[in-house]
Amino acid sequence: MKLFEFLVSPAECARRRGPEDRIVTSSRVRLARNLKDLPFPVWAKKPDRLRAMERIRPAVESLPVMKDAYSESIDRLSSLEKQILVERHLISREQAAKGPGSGLVLSRDETISVMINEEDHLRMQALLPGLQLKETWRIMDQFDTRLEEKLPFAFDRKLGYLTACPTNLGTGIRVSAMLHLPGLVLNENMGQIIQSVNKLGLAVRGLYGEGTEAFGNIFQISNQRTLGEDENRIVQRLEKVIGQVIEHEENARATLLERKPKVVLNHIGRAYGILSNAHSISSKETMNLLSLLRLGMDLGLFPGIERVLVDELFLLTQPGHLQLQSTDNLSAEDRDLRRADMLRERLAGVKRPLDRPREGGPA
Amino acid sequence: MKLFEFLVSPAECARRRGPEDRIVTSSRVRLARNLKDLPFPVWAKKPDRLRAMERIRPAVESLPVMKDAYSESIDRLSSLEKQILVERHLISREQAAKGPGSGLVLSRDETISVMINEEDHLRMQALLPGLQLKETWRIMDQFDTRLEEKLPFAFDRKLGYLTACPTNLGTGIRVSAMLHLPGLVLNENMGQIIQSVNKLGLAVRGLYGEGTEAFGNIFQISNQRTLGEDENRIVQRLEKVIGQVIEHEENARATLLERKPKVVLNHIGRAYGILSNAHSISSKETMNLLSLLRLGMDLGLFPGIERVLVDELFLLTQPGHLQLQSTDNLSAEDRDLRRADMLRERLAGVKRPLDRPREGGPA
Repeated sequence: MKLFEFLVSPAECARRRGPEDRIVTSSRVRLARNLKDLPFPVWAKKPDRLRAMERIRPAVESLPVMKDAYSESIDRLSSLEKQILVERHLISREQAAKGPGSGLVLSRDETISVMINEEDHLRMQALLPGLQLKETWRIMDQFDTRLEEKLPFAFDRKLGYLTACPTNLGTGIRVSAMLHLPGLVLNENMGQIIQSVNKLGLAVRGLYGEGTEAFGNIFQISNQRTLGEDENRIVQRLEKVIGQVIEHEENARATLLERKPKVVLNHIGRAYGILSNAHSISSKETMNLLSLLRLGMDLGLFPGIERVLVDELFLLTQPGHLQLQSTDNLSAEDRDLRRADMLRERLAGVKRPLDRPREGGPA
Repeated sequence: MKLFEFLVSPAECARRRGPEDRIVTSSRVRLARNLKDLPFPVWAKKPDRLRAMERIRPAVESLPVMKDAYSESIDRLSSLEKQILVERHLISREQAAKGPGSGLVLSRDETISVMINEEDHLRMQALLPGLQLKETWRIMDQFDTRLEEKLPFAFDRKLGYLTACPTNLGTGIRVSAMLHLPGLVLNENMGQIIQSVNKLGLAVRGLYGEGTEAFGNIFQISNQRTLGEDENRIVQRLEKVIGQVIEHEENARATLLERKPKVVLNHIGRAYGILSNAHSISSKETMNLLSLLRLGMDLGLFPGIERVLVDELFLLTQPGHLQLQSTDNLSAEDRDLRRADMLRERLAGVKRPLDRPREGGPA
């Protein structure tokens, strides 16, 4: 089965709902694990990498949640397929660049994905919509327990799970959530929030994780420490901080509407005007403007229009997803044209935003 | 009578048509003259300035074309009135800053205006819509002849008319036209055009003349030399060069549409999107975007919409004209909000531009 036929449609992705999804778009837990009797992927020669792959892949596939999973060696994926997977946050950019001996096993509903021979032998993640870190952790914890019955993980009584990079040593866990924070960005409070969150030992990153820009006002908040702290405690701590950031974002929006309503309306109006009338637009500009459109929907400025429209466009306008809809091989310039065509078409039925937020608050 | 009641409405201004007005918005001829027996305004003490004013004003008012003219001393005009006059190109910014002893006489239809005690005792201009330099010169020439029957102008047999600045010596004439050149700007050919025009001894300037920026892709082309060349010859030469610039602009538009239609559509679409959805917009951005909207109308992208709509907005969105429509004293920030409100309202009935230029060319 081709990857494209396997993947959930962007529309379906966008329709998935979760708690607090007005601000938190997704929750993720990933675990780093390694086989105890083979060298870590970074140092392993090709035969050892293949050997690891041969042992891990069937073990992962055999778990009940992986029934009818998509399972493939990375080198057998086209660059377009890999890009689509990156855009859906199902593999890392690093994994996409790997050769033979690296692989992916992806559950039918895209909730669980396992990268084989990325930085560690196993990078397994669970991904759920909205803010549900506990549930995401529960799924991943169970998955990890089942898998450990089948594979001997490198584990040290004192240090915990051994990993290629010491920053993952111990629990090997990274818990994260994606937050849409246009209010804090418009209010110019985001720098301060990042500082405060950092002081609590948590990291704030861009849309595609470490070292990436926060396009579309979307930020990833995750734990930094993996050593000396229990997984449940990490999840709890993160949930608490994210709860506070949500509150700050809600406050920022309320403050903006109260003190600078015209600034908000100006940003949203211009975003709408450009998105529905441009004939060429980059991915970056699109994300930043869609973010403002999403804010407008949250504020009730587009009555009758569902946020799912914007969430679907967030995915459909990414370079890989755009290429997927075309039979020609698109250059960056072509994509900018197609992206604009798609946006004009999809937004044709969306009327101009209201001139003021609706009485009684957002829809 | 208040100036505001005297002035032709912006709508009426915008409805005025002239030859080639798709590209040439107006033609202007101004003459610099001085009384032979009084010191030039720059050196004159106040009594001499007042004496000049007392002699010039009734002489100008007595000419038949000045029947029911608006005539006022500059110091009796409010700063808003002066700004309105500058925005209509009826007085210079310099004249607006003058004190007692400087004045303005303006014909009923705003075609002829005479500034008294600006840089010279008399700066008289005729202003017509579209490209009609010969007719504008004919009007000004006749006016000058009539006035010379009543006032003794400083004239030297060898040098011609004497002026405060040697750059005006001789004929004292400045012939100019305002050209809307978005095609040459988009095509990045404007620099080359300016060079070529300069080589022919003509000047290219911005919207408000010397030292001003070319907002809204509007450029003023005028003669530099006033000495040693007959007025008719200057008018002819300018008309020829402007004819060539018009041709270049038409070619630029055709080339853009043929080679980069998406670039043109993108600029026009975005301009339309922003103008009809912004809640705050500066005068400069407005002019630049209205210029693109005007180009879109020229290209037939807005069927059923008349260019007069844009031409009126060009005037109505200027700071002074905006203030005129309000009873409050507007700050720059207030004006940006009012300007955006007006644009959204006026453009509410304008549908999104067509996705391609109409078959058979522009309307």
